[in-house]
Amino acid sequence: MTPKEIVKKIKNTCPHIKSVYFVGCGASKSELYPAKYFLDANAKELRTGHYTANEFVYATPAAVGPDSIVITCSLGGNTPETVAASKKALELGAQVVAVTHNGDSPLAHAAHYVIVHGFEKNYAAKLEKMTNVLDLAVEILNEYEGYANYEDMQTGFEKIYDLIEQAVSFVLPTAKAFAESYKDAPVIYVMSSGATHEVAYSFSICLLMEMQWMNSGSFHDGEFFHGPFEIVDKDVPFLLLMNEGRTRAMDSRALAFLERFSAKTSVVDGKDFGLGSVIPSSVCEYFNPMLLTGVLRVYAEQLAIVRNHPLSQRRYMWKLEY
Amino acid sequence: MTPKEIVKKIKNTCPHIKSVYFVGCGASKSELYPAKYFLDANAKELRTGHYTANEFVYATPAAVGPDSIVITCSLGGNTPETVAASKKALELGAQVVAVTHNGDSPLAHAAHYVIVHGFEKNYAAKLEKMTNVLDLAVEILNEYEGYANYEDMQTGFEKIYDLIEQAVSFVLPTAKAFAESYKDAPVIYVMSSGATHEVAYSFSICLLMEMQWMNSGSFHDGEFFHGPFEIVDKDVPFLLLMNEGRTRAMDSRALAFLERFSAKTSVVDGKDFGLGSVIPSSVCEYFNPMLLTGVLRVYAEQLAIVRNHPLSQRRYMWKLEY
Repeated sequence: MTPKEIVKKIKNTCPHIKSVYFVGCGASKSELYPAKYFLDANAKELRTGHYTANEFVYATPAAVGPDSIVITCSLGGNTPETVAASKKALELGAQVVAVTHNGDSPLAHAAHYVIVHGFEKNYAAKLEKMTNVLDLAVEILNEYEGYANYEDMQTGFEKIYDLIEQAVSFVLPTAKAFAESYKDAPVIYVMSSGATHEVAYSFSICLLMEMQWMNSGSFHDGEFFHGPFEIVDKDVPFLLLMNEGRTRAMDSRALAFLERFSAKTSVVDGKDFGLGSVIPSSVCEYFNPMLLTGVLRVYAEQLAIVRNHPLSQRRYMWKLEY
Repeated sequence: MTPKEIVKKIKNTCPHIKSVYFVGCGASKSELYPAKYFLDANAKELRTGHYTANEFVYATPAAVGPDSIVITCSLGGNTPETVAASKKALELGAQVVAVTHNGDSPLAHAAHYVIVHGFEKNYAAKLEKMTNVLDLAVEILNEYEGYANYEDMQTGFEKIYDLIEQAVSFVLPTAKAFAESYKDAPVIYVMSSGATHEVAYSFSICLLMEMQWMNSGSFHDGEFFHGPFEIVDKDVPFLLLMNEGRTRAMDSRALAFLERFSAKTSVVDGKDFGLGSVIPSSVCEYFNPMLLTGVLRVYAEQLAIVRNHPLSQRRYMWKLEY
């Protein structure tokens, strides 16, 4: 079912939804964030929560119940913590929507509604998960409160996949340069703001720590000046993800500081890929995370090549019980 | 005014508060988190938000208005971003409560209500900021929705300061051993769960990166198994903050993994300091962050001593405009 169809059905069953919870683990948690950010920014009434799955299970928010929608997310649909969280949400009477690449997975079976998204086809397909969750959030807001920029948002959904494919098609030289320059970095800091905040987090914990065994930390670039910036010195490695949209001033301020003190700085910027010329300015900030995640995938692939460390190589995951 | 008096006055003026926003920067952002966690865990209706101050200013949530309480926090009361956020909240008609050590500061003057907290006297006094914000959250919940464990929570507020002072009085040998063992660590990872999640964040970005110029990263230990754990190897340095309360199972699982693969692991555990024997189990999880922050201050002081790097030493802060 499409996000629109699902939300129409939920509205028929539950005309008084009060809260929307986003639950996942690791990359699948961070990919829920743009939708949570969108609702927090625009909803006047709807309450949101965003949880790593086991925290949702062990310390379930009191408000989860028949007037909640719980959106759970796992690529393979078999992340045990997320499946447990989905079951918990069902038990409590919430409306549960699973977003997964596998429509016959344990997660898909622990939900009222399922969105099955692509993955393998191309870079854009890898962003269907994140984009579908944002689409769900937009439909929820529009159904329950109304949303003035709904049509602009539809333009965004129409354009974003082509924009990702176009961006990745010309980013290879920059990605190679990044990989060559950062391949021996003792640590890489990643930061961003707004809807892209958890793209920085995800690149840090998944692409760098998990898939490259490289040391990394991440934080919001609005927080940079309240602690982390004291680590800056000549050649300290940073990756800054810049947004087209309302929070850009924070990204720019961080960039100015990094350049002033000659940190080793790479920037991936939504503006460089024409986001704002294709998607209306009223909503374009919400599409930075998809575009930048697509581009960063190429960066990670190039890092894997120069480091002779495939992105699929693991020490523990898939190899043992823990 | 006390949190109770403030919330009574707000209730008289605004009987229909719908949302509570927590706004600050760096340590003062993270010290708001236990209150946000408490409300998310217990409120059936009240909606929460937690923002680094500039994001609140640039991308102000649509729901901020006359039916919101905005709690802003800054130790010296002169953090420009937080003062701007407080003014923004006033403009939008929200009820604004400033929590600061300086009752005559710009932040104090940009709020309807002010809580002035201690700091210098002892370790416990440094936790008055965090504890007062939790107290505000408890009063808000109790006034607007009722809270079954309100009396237990009062016991917690009565006991926590003595508990902190008692804990720090016997932690010195362990803190010295930590400092000696971690002083040359190339990076230190810090993690926790539940109410203590942002204590890990704050120790990472403020005590280690800002005050010791040491590389660091932090994450929720429920997320550990979905990315970061692949960095684990013999002697990779971790600091794990364990909670007494509902999320302890996640902390324990992370510990078991770290020990299994011989990571360099230090644990600071609320249970070791008798939290659960002094504060009722219904509410004791919410007091882990105060207790552990007190203990971690001693850890940071010892690190500063063995590294000959005072906690007050800065490269940029207080030295230049940025």
